[in-house]
Amino acid sequence: MNDLLKIADKEFNSRLFTGTGKFSSNNLMSEALKASESELITVALKRVDVDNSQDKMLQSIMRPKVNLLPNTSGVRDAKEAVFAAQLAREALETNWIKLEIHPDPKYLLPDPIETLKAAEELVKLGFVVMPYIHADPVLCKRLEDVGTQCVMPLGAPIGTNKGIKTLDFLEIIIEQSNVPVIVDAGIGSPSHAAYAMELGADAVLVNTAIAVSKNPTQMAVAFKMAVEAGRMAFNAKLASVKKHAEASSPLTSFLN
Amino acid sequence: MNDLLKIADKEFNSRLFTGTGKFSSNNLMSEALKASESELITVALKRVDVDNSQDKMLQSIMRPKVNLLPNTSGVRDAKEAVFAAQLAREALETNWIKLEIHPDPKYLLPDPIETLKAAEELVKLGFVVMPYIHADPVLCKRLEDVGTQCVMPLGAPIGTNKGIKTLDFLEIIIEQSNVPVIVDAGIGSPSHAAYAMELGADAVLVNTAIAVSKNPTQMAVAFKMAVEAGRMAFNAKLASVKKHAEASSPLTSFLN
Amino acid sequence: MNDLLKIADKEFNSRLFTGTGKFSSNNLMSEALKASESELITVALKRVDVDNSQDKMLQSIMRPKVNLLPNTSGVRDAKEAVFAAQLAREALETNWIKLEIHPDPKYLLPDPIETLKAAEELVKLGFVVMPYIHADPVLCKRLEDVGTQCVMPLGAPIGTNKGIKTLDFLEIIIEQSNVPVIVDAGIGSPSHAAYAMELGADAVLVNTAIAVSKNPTQMAVAFKMAVEAGRMAFNAKLASVKKHAEASSPLTSFLN
Amino acid sequence: MNDLLKIADKEFNSRLFTGTGKFSSNNLMSEALKASESELITVALKRVDVDNSQDKMLQSIMRPKVNLLPNTSGVRDAKEAVFAAQLAREALETNWIKLEIHPDPKYLLPDPIETLKAAEELVKLGFVVMPYIHADPVLCKRLEDVGTQCVMPLGAPIGTNKGIKTLDFLEIIIEQSNVPVIVDAGIGSPSHAAYAMELGADAVLVNTAIAVSKNPTQMAVAFKMAVEAGRMAFNAKLASVKKHAEASSPLTSFLN
Repeated sequence: MNDLLKIADKEFNSRLFTGTGKFSSNNLMSEALKASESELITVALKRVDVDNSQDKMLQSIMRPKVNLLPNTSGVRDAKEAVFAAQLAREALETNWIKLEIHPDPKYLLPDPIETLKAAEELVKLGFVVMPYIHADPVLCKRLEDVGTQCVMPLGAPIGTNKGIKTLDFLEIIIEQSNVPVIVDAGIGSPSHAAYAMELGADAVLVNTAIAVSKNPTQMAVAFKMAVEAGRMAFNAKLASVKKHAEASSPLTSFLN
Repeated sequence: MNDLLKIADKEFNSRLFTGTGKFSSNNLMSEALKASESELITVALKRVDVDNSQDKMLQSIMRPKVNLLPNTSGVRDAKEAVFAAQLAREALETNWIKLEIHPDPKYLLPDPIETLKAAEELVKLGFVVMPYIHADPVLCKRLEDVGTQCVMPLGAPIGTNKGIKTLDFLEIIIEQSNVPVIVDAGIGSPSHAAYAMELGADAVLVNTAIAVSKNPTQMAVAFKMAVEAGRMAFNAKLASVKKHAEASSPLTSFLN
Repeated sequence: MNDLLKIADKEFNSRLFTGTGKFSSNNLMSEALKASESELITVALKRVDVDNSQDKMLQSIMRPKVNLLPNTSGVRDAKEAVFAAQLAREALETNWIKLEIHPDPKYLLPDPIETLKAAEELVKLGFVVMPYIHADPVLCKRLEDVGTQCVMPLGAPIGTNKGIKTLDFLEIIIEQSNVPVIVDAGIGSPSHAAYAMELGADAVLVNTAIAVSKNPTQMAVAFKMAVEAGRMAFNAKLASVKKHAEASSPLTSFLN
Repeated sequence: MNDLLKIADKEFNSRLFTGTGKFSSNNLMSEALKASESELITVALKRVDVDNSQDKMLQSIMRPKVNLLPNTSGVRDAKEAVFAAQLAREALETNWIKLEIHPDPKYLLPDPIETLKAAEELVKLGFVVMPYIHADPVLCKRLEDVGTQCVMPLGAPIGTNKGIKTLDFLEIIIEQSNVPVIVDAGIGSPSHAAYAMELGADAVLVNTAIAVSKNPTQMAVAFKMAVEAGRMAFNAKLASVKKHAEASSPLTSFLN
């Protein structure tokens, strides 16, 4: 079955996007990300040595079919975000940018105002913008209106592993969106990832849950399979929730 | 990795057990069950033509490595259950029995008293007893005490596809049990199955959610992958749930 | 409005039943239970000095309209329970008994088999039996069948304050029961109590959540009000859950 | 106990704010709102006959201690909102305004960008601004920064009666806010309202759940009591959630 995900001009076989934070070593990260079969990997610009084309972390990620997605993590407003995106474009030679603007250092929650402002400007500057945002359906529509190529609503506060805590809003976003919906942040286990896909999300982004596992590579495989399972179930249509059982067959009187 | 599930004297590669109710045709069932790679398939004795060794339904299920698990669905008390189990043993040449006693035709919920009584007697009669029960930790211990080879607590009322609605009790059962814990009933999507496995369940039994899907074979594959993903995640240890984020790296001042 | 709760031959104005464990002093307990306006208060037989009619704890509870409900907490099987109930009847001069049989000292979860056995015997011995049980709809029907005057399914493991974690089963119990349904155990806040009442429970029993509060008397009043609020809402019929809004009025063009 | 809620220069005895939509008659509304003891009642400007000081609906609401809170429901952007607020100030002689900007007619979800823009301008124009918003912690801080006197995050999409579906975010908002937090939208039953108050919300706004009940007056009383109960419980400090029971007293050997 051909079930590719298309964002801007790129097609992805894998609907599992991954991140590079919190791994205990570059080796472990490299092995886990390879096992995940992820084709889009986000990397914080602030962690890249932009003056060094031999940056160790980047080298440990890159493989054929893998696309780098620099992110603006660490910026506090639209102006800083736009500057960071431009730096990233130059250093990493990609016009894709994961837009993250979270002024609060405790919960790292995104700023809707600055994100929209930066998105609008970055689109004009020719970027493929992937904005990390609250699961706010109206904001999603506004981002789509200014030309972002997808929206990335959160499932729960980043790093909490709480799962899909924004269900009622994700459902609306998925219903209304004309661009791919990628659930970002909060996904702490393969079942969460499968659930997001069953709801109709186009992809998920997972970082912490893989990176901090006792066995990141095995966990990466688990996420890969769960994302595929959730997508297959979405395509095959899930059974509806019922209030009570329907006997699976007439109760015959074979005992009498 | 060797991660076989052992029940009584049998070992299973697959932790996805399946059922045979509600499929729209034997062909569809056959194809879906094969795709699921399930090695233990339950079949209601009442649906088998016990006098006909060429029973079509059974023929459509059997493959190498597949074990039949007759169930007593339709009986109302311990006496009927024991009688049905004996019939099944003779007709299907197996001493394995899935013990289901549900007097109420609407919700098909199991009777704890009759189930324990029948289990005790069936164990004495040499059966491998797999009892379908409420997620009642004390009942699980009592069944284990009379010699059942596993326990099969429900996730939600059967046929409802509601998922894991007995979480707080499943966790206790898994913590306390010395026999395999198989979550039976209520599992309506791959994410539910993955979740049960992540909690530490030893296996899940899925029927309705596969059988009534628009595409049972694809759904069977989705469940197969989700169960494997959940098991892998359990083995690799999930990240713990946090109250808030920890910044994935120091916020450097690269922008200044 | 006359909305009394009747159990056996007694009528209750208050649908908040209370317990006597874990209070830091008899004085605090006395004040809190008075403030709760509870008319049925359970007391562990093991904590009563049965040879002393001047037992301090009992004296601190009793007021006009208050009924004592001895419980069998601490017994491990039906035989011990029946013996304890008889002791209680003699010592406290009441034939009401809260039947609690929980062999496991960690979770204090009830034993369905021993509870049914003891209930049957106690009913024959003339007791008004109020059994504490898992939220198991089939067990509830069986207890009703042997003559218990109510059923007391748990909301969550006792002492956990987790709230209503057995929703799907409580709904079935309430739908099917011909005797009052009293949600016992797990209720940790007034909102939990209100929720149980909104579902159609006839009463709730609260102990830990009042006793261990920083201000037990104020918490007792909060529970009293929440139980009344939940009952009123049940009687007034709650609005149904909708998938989306209906605009509260036509969107007129007053701005144009 | 003195536990008044202060917003701007006004003090409220009641923490239940109410609305005026969807009642089947002015009489029923008048009776229910009186029974609720609410002291702040919101009214859609679009529903008021602004040229008629004898407007029937307004007359049916007003009582001593009741404050009218005009809302901008029906506007689509900041400009319309500011205009509507000015109209309301003139017509209803109050500088309080509930700011609602929801461009989508199906879910009526608020627009974060337009809301912040309008809020900033309205504060400069001397309004007491009460903004209805998504449960977005960063947006709440930004609104506080421009001078709104409170924030009104939603519990669930308006009119759905789904309850508190934004828990993880409301907790952060309550933790971080320096202005009162009023949970608006989604509250469908008294238990939901009590729950919001237990979390530490300063007030709740309820409309649909009262208006569409079979008995609005009784439901209004139920909400009033639930809000008080939740507030009392918050002040008295709730017991913490535990993983398992602690036996309520030593298990003595009275039976031996």
